[in-house]
Amino acid sequence: MARIAVIPGDGVGAEVMAPTLRILQALDVSEGLGLVFDTFDFGAERYLATGVGLPAGQLETFRREYDAILLGAMGDARVPEGAHAREILLGLRFGLDLYINFRPCRLYAESLSPLKGKREGQIDFVVFRENTEGPYTGIGGSQKPGTGDEVAVSTELSTRKGVERIIRAAFAWAQKKGKRSVVLGDKSNAIPAHQLWLRVFREVAAGYPELEARHLYVDNLALQLVQRPETFEVIVTTNLFGDILTDLGAALVGGLGLSASANLNPDSTPLFEPVHGSAPDLVGQGRVNPMAMFLTAGLMLEELGHPRTAARLENAVLRAIRAGQVTRDLGGTLSTTGVMEAVLRHLEAPA
Amino acid sequence: MARIAVIPGDGVGAEVMAPTLRILQALDVSEGLGLVFDTFDFGAERYLATGVGLPAGQLETFRREYDAILLGAMGDARVPEGAHAREILLGLRFGLDLYINFRPCRLYAESLSPLKGKREGQIDFVVFRENTEGPYTGIGGSQKPGTGDEVAVSTELSTRKGVERIIRAAFAWAQKKGKRSVVLGDKSNAIPAHQLWLRVFREVAAGYPELEARHLYVDNLALQLVQRPETFEVIVTTNLFGDILTDLGAALVGGLGLSASANLNPDSTPLFEPVHGSAPDLVGQGRVNPMAMFLTAGLMLEELGHPRTAARLENAVLRAIRAGQVTRDLGGTLSTTGVMEAVLRHLEAPA
Ligand SMILES: CC(C)[C@H](C(=O)O)[C@@H](O)C(=O)O
Ligand SMILES: CC(C)[C@H](C(=O)O)[C@@H](O)C(=O)O
Repeated sequence: MARIAVIPGDGVGAEVMAPTLRILQALDVSEGLGLVFDTFDFGAERYLATGVGLPAGQLETFRREYDAILLGAMGDARVPEGAHAREILLGLRFGLDLYINFRPCRLYAESLSPLKGKREGQIDFVVFRENTEGPYTGIGGSQKPGTGDEVAVSTELSTRKGVERIIRAAFAWAQKKGKRSVVLGDKSNAIPAHQLWLRVFREVAAGYPELEARHLYVDNLALQLVQRPETFEVIVTTNLFGDILTDLGAALVGGLGLSASANLNPDSTPLFEPVHGSAPDLVGQGRVNPMAMFLTAGLMLEELGHPRTAARLENAVLRAIRAGQVTRDLGGTLSTTGVMEAVLRHLEAPA
Repeated sequence: MARIAVIPGDGVGAEVMAPTLRILQALDVSEGLGLVFDTFDFGAERYLATGVGLPAGQLETFRREYDAILLGAMGDARVPEGAHAREILLGLRFGLDLYINFRPCRLYAESLSPLKGKREGQIDFVVFRENTEGPYTGIGGSQKPGTGDEVAVSTELSTRKGVERIIRAAFAWAQKKGKRSVVLGDKSNAIPAHQLWLRVFREVAAGYPELEARHLYVDNLALQLVQRPETFEVIVTTNLFGDILTDLGAALVGGLGLSASANLNPDSTPLFEPVHGSAPDLVGQGRVNPMAMFLTAGLMLEELGHPRTAARLENAVLRAIRAGQVTRDLGGTLSTTGVMEAVLRHLEAPA
């Protein structure tokens, strides 16, 4: 049995979560996975009413009683500066010490890429984004805010432990999956603190002589991702650079409507969320693309020990894409529910 | 008269500088610009021999005696961690307080873009990259380096003065050039210190009611630059994000072989450099693309008060591109010298 905490969250969160749960339940019935879902109402509504994003003790409950957390989206214009999103999202990532933010970028159909001449499967890389350090620790602040003398600082933190564990995770995964290379993205030519990344990368790489270890400054990495995405398999990078590079990667393969992510730590309760946000402009229209959430559920199934079921789900999404059964953002005409129905049909069809 | 300090620098620096000086001299002769060039040997060679990147007093000399600095490239594998490049490049940017890093991205020919269906001129934006703060101040370091307890920190600095002057520069330029919008890229949803950027952006924007002021988180900005680059005209952003976004922008319009940049402060001596580096793998082959350096010289001419000459030069480069008179990186077969000769011919031809 696997107990899953479901947090639909804000905006379109509920609209992508509902069809995802339908699909998971269908898979559960047909494969006997023993999935149990509990829903939590964390998000802007509750934050505005109570001032609380993540209730006290919640992290402990998640750690002890749940095998996974599935989250829809966070973000609401009524909460200034995304305070609750930071409290909940970053609260879970940091509080559960989920140091791996795993974000695959795969091109499912030539037509989905804005790039010329990239065929299905030709773009296929994964970003291992460090997820518990960087400038996301919130160290810093403003001196004399609002005055002409204001000075604002933000400190990016990298510890040996933090850097090493994400780099090791990237290499171990690359080896397990039979990949050929791992690329580090940092800015050690301008930020001396990033030399820790480069040093540890070289050390860890020495233990994987069969993997090519390449180092690129992040600006050059962004450029090459656009110019020759097919040369990347596994990228490991800082929290901040990972944030930027995974949105960039999403843009190369069809946008946020297809971008899944997993926040992992083998010793904690993992969190699964699509890369997209709450998309306030789409709320209530029934036409948001649920595929990023489906693929995110796929990552969860894989992590829960059901790799074949995960592949079956990804494959059903791929078939729906090939059949043009997609929402407007991907050039189709289907509603959110229409896409779900299409994916359910492909799940039932023989492989 | 204008006195110009020429720093060819490392790697291909000299190879792109020589043809650029030929072109500038031709323009000088035909238009009577009164350009005077002095060459400086700053770079890896001298740094390795003397340990000095920028000699003492050099900044003062540049400030007092020169109207512009033209730099080829910095970077050499023999100098660990790019120390001399940092000392020279960042030394000039910071030491001369050149707070505007101005980087245009313009698509000169449909074939140059890796993106589907973008026509000539359809991508045409400028990045105003803050150039004197951010993590580039070097504040930070490592505690217990090389041990398992190592902690490395880097502090990103933003001052009211620094943020305000780059945002004002972006708006003033947008207005002067008849643009319609200015976009801010920051990460204020995760980095509280970036709220200074957002606040000042809104304040300055209020003084330009005819300009649309849009705010995007940098990850979303990177994504949208790929998905709809034609919607951007002027982008203003932090030093670090500007570094990444301008390489990304370069990738959208043909790569670093066409990317020019100007480091400006109306009260100081400006520095002009292509965005590309020293490209060690191309050295000595006579086939490096000199066009980024030509376009950089064009930015210098504009700044020195010769906008028509600058336009003439850009136009000659554009014609060479249209005629396929380009180096290998742009799909051509010409050598560096061949490209120079083509551009010189187009300069002589009637407009
Ligand atoms: C060489 C490096 C320090 C520099 C920077 O980061 O500014 C370069 O990437 C650039 O964009 O000019
Ligand atoms: C909402 C924001 C804090 C978050 C991040 O920067 O990590 C988001 O952009 C993401 O990538 O998951």
